[in-house]
Amino acid sequence: MVEIIGYHTTRFGEWWEESLFSLINQTYTGILKQTQLDKKQIDAVFFSNMLAGVLENNLHLTAKLAELLGNNIPIFRIESACASGGVAFFLAFNYLKANPNKTVLVIGAEKMTDFSPEQTTTALISAASGEEQEAGLSFPGLYAMLAQVYLQKYQATEEDLAYVAYKNHYHGSLNDKAHFQKKVSLSNILNSAYIAYPLKVFDCAPISDGACALLLTNKKNTYQLPAVRVLASEVATDTISLTKRQRLDEIKATKIAAEKAFRAALLSRKDIQLAEVHDCFTIAEILALEDLGFWPKGQGGKKARELSTLIGRGEFVVNTSGGLKAGGHPVGATGIKQLGEIYLQLTHQAQKRQLKKISYGLAHNVGGSGGTAVVTILGV
Amino acid sequence: MVEIIGYHTTRFGEWWEESLFSLINQTYTGILKQTQLDKKQIDAVFFSNMLAGVLENNLHLTAKLAELLGNNIPIFRIESACASGGVAFFLAFNYLKANPNKTVLVIGAEKMTDFSPEQTTTALISAASGEEQEAGLSFPGLYAMLAQVYLQKYQATEEDLAYVAYKNHYHGSLNDKAHFQKKVSLSNILNSAYIAYPLKVFDCAPISDGACALLLTNKKNTYQLPAVRVLASEVATDTISLTKRQRLDEIKATKIAAEKAFRAALLSRKDIQLAEVHDCFTIAEILALEDLGFWPKGQGGKKARELSTLIGRGEFVVNTSGGLKAGGHPVGATGIKQLGEIYLQLTHQAQKRQLKKISYGLAHNVGGSGGTAVVTILGV
Repeated sequence: MVEIIGYHTTRFGEWWEESLFSLINQTYTGILKQTQLDKKQIDAVFFSNMLAGVLENNLHLTAKLAELLGNNIPIFRIESACASGGVAFFLAFNYLKANPNKTVLVIGAEKMTDFSPEQTTTALISAASGEEQEAGLSFPGLYAMLAQVYLQKYQATEEDLAYVAYKNHYHGSLNDKAHFQKKVSLSNILNSAYIAYPLKVFDCAPISDGACALLLTNKKNTYQLPAVRVLASEVATDTISLTKRQRLDEIKATKIAAEKAFRAALLSRKDIQLAEVHDCFTIAEILALEDLGFWPKGQGGKKARELSTLIGRGEFVVNTSGGLKAGGHPVGATGIKQLGEIYLQLTHQAQKRQLKKISYGLAHNVGGSGGTAVVTILGV
Repeated sequence: MVEIIGYHTTRFGEWWEESLFSLINQTYTGILKQTQLDKKQIDAVFFSNMLAGVLENNLHLTAKLAELLGNNIPIFRIESACASGGVAFFLAFNYLKANPNKTVLVIGAEKMTDFSPEQTTTALISAASGEEQEAGLSFPGLYAMLAQVYLQKYQATEEDLAYVAYKNHYHGSLNDKAHFQKKVSLSNILNSAYIAYPLKVFDCAPISDGACALLLTNKKNTYQLPAVRVLASEVATDTISLTKRQRLDEIKATKIAAEKAFRAALLSRKDIQLAEVHDCFTIAEILALEDLGFWPKGQGGKKARELSTLIGRGEFVVNTSGGLKAGGHPVGATGIKQLGEIYLQLTHQAQKRQLKKISYGLAHNVGGSGGTAVVTILGV
C-alpha cells in the first residue's frame, strides 16, 4: 500500500525575489522540517517542472536537486506540460509499487514571473501542436474555442462560466497559500476584459510561481504521520491538436483516465466528497466535472450556476484550494498541489476551508488542451 | 521478469531533411514492423528527449506522440540531460515491475543539427551548474578539467586517450547505424586540433541526430521474439558542480549505480562480456571502466593503450556500437542505443561486430559531467 504522509507548499504567487531553485529549497526543507524526517530517509525524488529549460536554459535539474540533497539517490524529472505534476506522482506511485520499503518525495516547482508575458506565452504554447503554434494560438485561444463549442451546443452562458470563477475565488479566500485570496463579485467577473471570446480575465488562471512537495511511502507503520492512501492513479493521452479530435465538447483523455481510476479504486462517483480539477480556464472545470462522470454531459453550465460545489453547500465540493483559477498555476507544481489539498482535507488540516465529512478525494490534472490527463483517487 | 524483445534504430548522423518527429516516426513504425506488433499491443511509452524544449520550443511531446499512436495510452517524457535514455529505461523497467501483463516502448530521440554550434552548445550546457554556465564552461571544458586531473595524477598521456578513440572508431566501422563508419589512425587522432586541452577533436563525441526504440514486456511466452532479460537497472546522482565533488578522478554516481546494479543482478564484473559505456569524451570511457569496477583506479590509461577491449582481442569488449564517440550522440537517444546494442549482441544480431561468446552485457549512461549515472545489466 502506498500512502501520502506529508505535504508542504510555498504560497503560490509572484515571487520576484525567489529563484526556481530557492522555491524548491523552501519546500524541500519545509517538508523535512514538518515531517521531522532526515534527508537520509528519502530513497528517491520525482521532480516535476515544465518550463525551466525553455525559459532559463536550465535542464538536468535532477542533478541540481542532487546537490541540494547530497545523498546520491535517484532523482527523476518528468515533463508533460501542465500535467507534469500528476504524471510525476503517477510514476512515483508506480515506483513504490515496484520497490518495497521505500520513501520518496514528489516535488513540483515552476518560476514563471521573471519573464515577459510574451516569453511566458511563447514558452507555454510549446505544449500545443506545431500547427497551433504556427497559427499563433495560445492556450486562452484554444480553450476559448472549446468554450465556444460548449456554450453553443448546450446553450450555456458566459454567466455560467463566471460562477466557476466566483466559487473558486471564494475558496481561494479561505486558503492562505492561494495566489489570490480575495472574493470576487459576479459582476466584476462578467465585466472583466475579454482575453479570447468568451473567456475574460477572470475566466483564466494566472501565471504563478510556486513549489510544493508530497512525501510518499510504502513502509508500514514506520512514521507517526497523518496518512492518506493512494487508491488509484491513471494517465491517459489524446491527440495534441484540437483539429484531430472527434469531439470538442469533451476532454477524452480525462474520460479514459477517470474510468480506469474509478475501476482501480473500486469506487463510484458518489463516493467522492472533494475533487480538485484542472480549471486553467473556467470552461475547463465544467468539462472536467462532466468528463470525470460527476455531471451529465451538457449539464455543466446549469450545475455551475447552482453553486452546488461551493464549500458549505452540499456533499460534493470542487477545488477547495481555489483551484488553478484562484489558487494559482505554477504549471509544474499544480498537479502536486491538487493532491496536497486533498491530503490536507483528508487529514483535517485544511483550516478555514476544512470539509466536515470527507473520506475520498479525486485530483484531475491536464496537460495542454487535453493531450494528457491524470486522475488520482485518495482515501483515508 | 522483464524482457527486451525488440530494438530499432535510425542511423545516427546528420539528418538535415528529417525533423525530430519524423525521426521518432521512423523508429516507431520501424520497431512495430520489425516485431510484427500492432500498436494496440503497446500499453505505455516512455520517451526520452533532452533538448526539444530549449532548441525548438517543443514540449509536451508525450501528447505529440499520442497523436502518432492514436490509442490514448499513458506516455511519459523523461529528461536527465544525456542520461535521459537510461533513466527512461529505468522507469519503464520499474513500471513493468509494478504492472503485470504489459508491453511498453522506450523511445529516445534527439534532433541537434538544425541549429548553430553556438545554439547547440548553449542548449547543452543547460545540463551544467549555474556557476559553470556563467563561467562559460561547456562540456568539452568540464571533461578537459577531469582529463587534466587524471593525466597528471596517474601519469597517463594524451596518447592513452587517443587509443580509446582509435578503438571506438574501429568499432564504428563495423556498425552500419553509426554516425562515423571510418577507421581513424592514431596519428590522425593525435594530430587533430585541440578543443579544450588535453581533449582534441577526435577525443569528443559528435553532435548527432537519431532516434531508437526498445520493446519491453513482462508477459510470459507471448511473443515469439528474441528476448533478453533485464537483470538490474540502477540510477544514482551526484553534485552537478565539479567544485562540490570530493574527487575529480572519478564519477561517483557511476560507482554507486554500478555497486547497486551488480548486487541486484547477483553478478560480478568478470561475468560481463560487453560494456557500452558513456564515452562522450575519451577520458569518460577510462573513468567509466574504472568506476564501474572493471579496471583498478589509475590503470585506465595503460589499459586503453593495450587495446584489450577491442573486438577480437579478449573476452571483455567495450563499445562495440562505436560508443558515443563514433556511433554518434543524439543525447536523448544515446542511453537507449547502448541497451539496443547489447540486445543485438545477446541475440546474435550484431552482424559484422557480433561477439562470439556473450551472456551478459552492461550499459552505462551519464548525464552532464556525472550528475546522473544509470547502470543497467542485461543477460540471456
